[in-house]
Amino acid sequence: MEVTVSRKAHFNAAHRLFNKNWSEEKNEKVFGKCNNLNYHGHNYEMIVNVTGKINPETGYVIDMGVLKKIIKDEVEEKLDHKNLNLDVDYFSNTIPSAENICIYIHKLLRKKISNDLNISVTLFETPRNFVTYPSN
Amino acid sequence: MEVTVSRKAHFNAAHRLFNKNWSEEKNEKVFGKCNNLNYHGHNYEMIVNVTGKINPETGYVIDMGVLKKIIKDEVEEKLDHKNLNLDVDYFSNTIPSAENICIYIHKLLRKKISNDLNISVTLFETPRNFVTYPSN
Amino acid sequence: MEVTVSRKAHFNAAHRLFNKNWSEEKNEKVFGKCNNLNYHGHNYEMIVNVTGKINPETGYVIDMGVLKKIIKDEVEEKLDHKNLNLDVDYFSNTIPSAENICIYIHKLLRKKISNDLNISVTLFETPRNFVTYPSN
Amino acid sequence: MEVTVSRKAHFNAAHRLFNKNWSEEKNEKVFGKCNNLNYHGHNYEMIVNVTGKINPETGYVIDMGVLKKIIKDEVEEKLDHKNLNLDVDYFSNTIPSAENICIYIHKLLRKKISNDLNISVTLFETPRNFVTYPSN
Amino acid sequence: MEVTVSRKAHFNAAHRLFNKNWSEEKNEKVFGKCNNLNYHGHNYEMIVNVTGKINPETGYVIDMGVLKKIIKDEVEEKLDHKNLNLDVDYFSNTIPSAENICIYIHKLLRKKISNDLNISVTLFETPRNFVTYPSN
Amino acid sequence: MEVTVSRKAHFNAAHRLFNKNWSEEKNEKVFGKCNNLNYHGHNYEMIVNVTGKINPETGYVIDMGVLKKIIKDEVEEKLDHKNLNLDVDYFSNTIPSAENICIYIHKLLRKKISNDLNISVTLFETPRNFVTYPSN
Repeated sequence: MEVTVSRKAHFNAAHRLFNKNWSEEKNEKVFGKCNNLNYHGHNYEMIVNVTGKINPETGYVIDMGVLKKIIKDEVEEKLDHKNLNLDVDYFSNTIPSAENICIYIHKLLRKKISNDLNISVTLFETPRNFVTYPSN
Repeated sequence: MEVTVSRKAHFNAAHRLFNKNWSEEKNEKVFGKCNNLNYHGHNYEMIVNVTGKINPETGYVIDMGVLKKIIKDEVEEKLDHKNLNLDVDYFSNTIPSAENICIYIHKLLRKKISNDLNISVTLFETPRNFVTYPSN
Repeated sequence: MEVTVSRKAHFNAAHRLFNKNWSEEKNEKVFGKCNNLNYHGHNYEMIVNVTGKINPETGYVIDMGVLKKIIKDEVEEKLDHKNLNLDVDYFSNTIPSAENICIYIHKLLRKKISNDLNISVTLFETPRNFVTYPSN
Repeated sequence: MEVTVSRKAHFNAAHRLFNKNWSEEKNEKVFGKCNNLNYHGHNYEMIVNVTGKINPETGYVIDMGVLKKIIKDEVEEKLDHKNLNLDVDYFSNTIPSAENICIYIHKLLRKKISNDLNISVTLFETPRNFVTYPSN
Repeated sequence: MEVTVSRKAHFNAAHRLFNKNWSEEKNEKVFGKCNNLNYHGHNYEMIVNVTGKINPETGYVIDMGVLKKIIKDEVEEKLDHKNLNLDVDYFSNTIPSAENICIYIHKLLRKKISNDLNISVTLFETPRNFVTYPSN
Repeated sequence: MEVTVSRKAHFNAAHRLFNKNWSEEKNEKVFGKCNNLNYHGHNYEMIVNVTGKINPETGYVIDMGVLKKIIKDEVEEKLDHKNLNLDVDYFSNTIPSAENICIYIHKLLRKKISNDLNISVTLFETPRNFVTYPSN
């Protein structure tokens, strides 16, 4: 009898999409205005979903206060008010697309949440564009 | 060729989280401000998802008007403007965490909706905290 | 390592629910105010979910700009500011319930998106009523 | 010491914008796709704002339950699931633009709410387009 | 050249509406289910609006971080996860209607924000019911 | 008999807050993480409010299609996917705080909208922080 517990959180960041193995022209063609040399940015909203059994003593799958703190310490501290390309090592060799940021957030959380619990992450780059990992 | 039909509804209620087998100190430590002796409360939003085949004569999986009435009669009437701990029998021995409220709503609806249809319930305790049963 | 990429879009349309094989009385009884002879309407919101592998060269499952254009050309152009019963051939023999509109949108998109990618569509008829195909 | 009390409500309707004194060409040019002969539709959301003094015996400017019922009886019953052009007399000689619908709703409510209270109405035609009367 | 700066915040609380000078019957008649003896509750959302001139050295009317902290210390600490009737002195003699809670929040903030700045508060009791003081 | 017509739009941008006449330490102290040397970013949402009389021939205060195009040409083209500090001349000498961006947008629109119509702009830097010019 498993339940999924979900917590919304957010961070603001700048980024730029480009493939350093490509010419300027190809980057411009593929990434368009997302390739702006001087960066642009987003209010990223994320939903972290944690699935597992309810602890009968607390009625909780995971304490939301604990989950909130893990998200804050592991994700918000590393990404909020940052330039993803310049300030976050992981993206020195990985394009900071919504897809790749979502997988990175999943990795950060996976290390800190018990393996008895499954995790998925939905990341909104804008209110109209979002991604989920692992896929639905 | 199955479709999921979803309906949002809501109720307002007071509750308090505590385990009656524990000392006051342990309840305070585990549940923090959610353990306030005088209760606190929420605007609970729920999404009821019903999955099944489309009836070719109506184009419906289930008539939304019928589903709306079942939710009103079975869930809202029992929980809206109530104190979950004191006014709802089910929670005399079950901690009214979001997880347990969600399972209770699922039980209430399961009795009234045809077994040809699958049901899942998402319950928002706040816009940032929500749970889903059965798990995604 | 699959990711789901989601894009929200919308269109406004008029429709009326009725089964042409039924009497006026039966239509009135089953469809109620949705059967209004002169039509009523909605702001339909849709979420198109596309699941697949990330292209390591772009960091994309699918270019959101491309997906946005496919949705515009294949769905919005056909449905926006239209009367679904009168202006869209598909609904001359199919009741334009949310369920059937959702399946129709899925069909329109399926033709234009690579078969390596899975698609699902969620369609909001109102902020409180929505459907998903294929089912969750 | 005045307070403004606001209540959200909604209705779904079909409409068409055209000026019957104009040629088909001029209507097409001015109103574009909003002029579709077969109508289109919207989920209209409205916010009714009522301003006045607090009654010290109840703590209310106006009882929200009373306001909800007035909106239901005076506005929703007349407009929900209707074709504004064909089913609502007021729009036989008035173009059912968001501006004019908003003024009409204001008129309907003004008759039923005490003159000690000021009223304003905001009407959302879509989540991105809305109007307020009287003006802010 | 004045600008209004607005900040959203929230708290969860239980309350009950009743007038202690009235009979049980009259309270039941006037306040209905809001009079439930065992309390019910809400996720209150508030918007604090601060109006004034821009400081040309910072580009700020008021530092949002400072405003956020004032709201946290003066409002959230006093009201979050509380029973308004039992845990907040102000409501021992004042009915905790949305109108009166809004005025109370305004009083709390007025003491801590420079008199060069105007303040108004909008308080959502539910997503559909809200109040503003001073009135719009 | 004036009506206010409102249109939501959005753009994504990077920015950094700092006063070039101050030391690095003072900038750090006043602007905190908003001063990140490498920029951060936001999804800015704006609401443009236009107030005036209804044209009886169209039922419009202003054609929403025209307003949408003005916002696109005058605001989105200049700000979307840009670095406000580096790519927008206006902010070479003006700190791109939400307050100052809002005034700038107002200036851009004021030039293109008839002087018979009043304009105000609300700019959301995040869903929780927003500003309005001229003040409410």
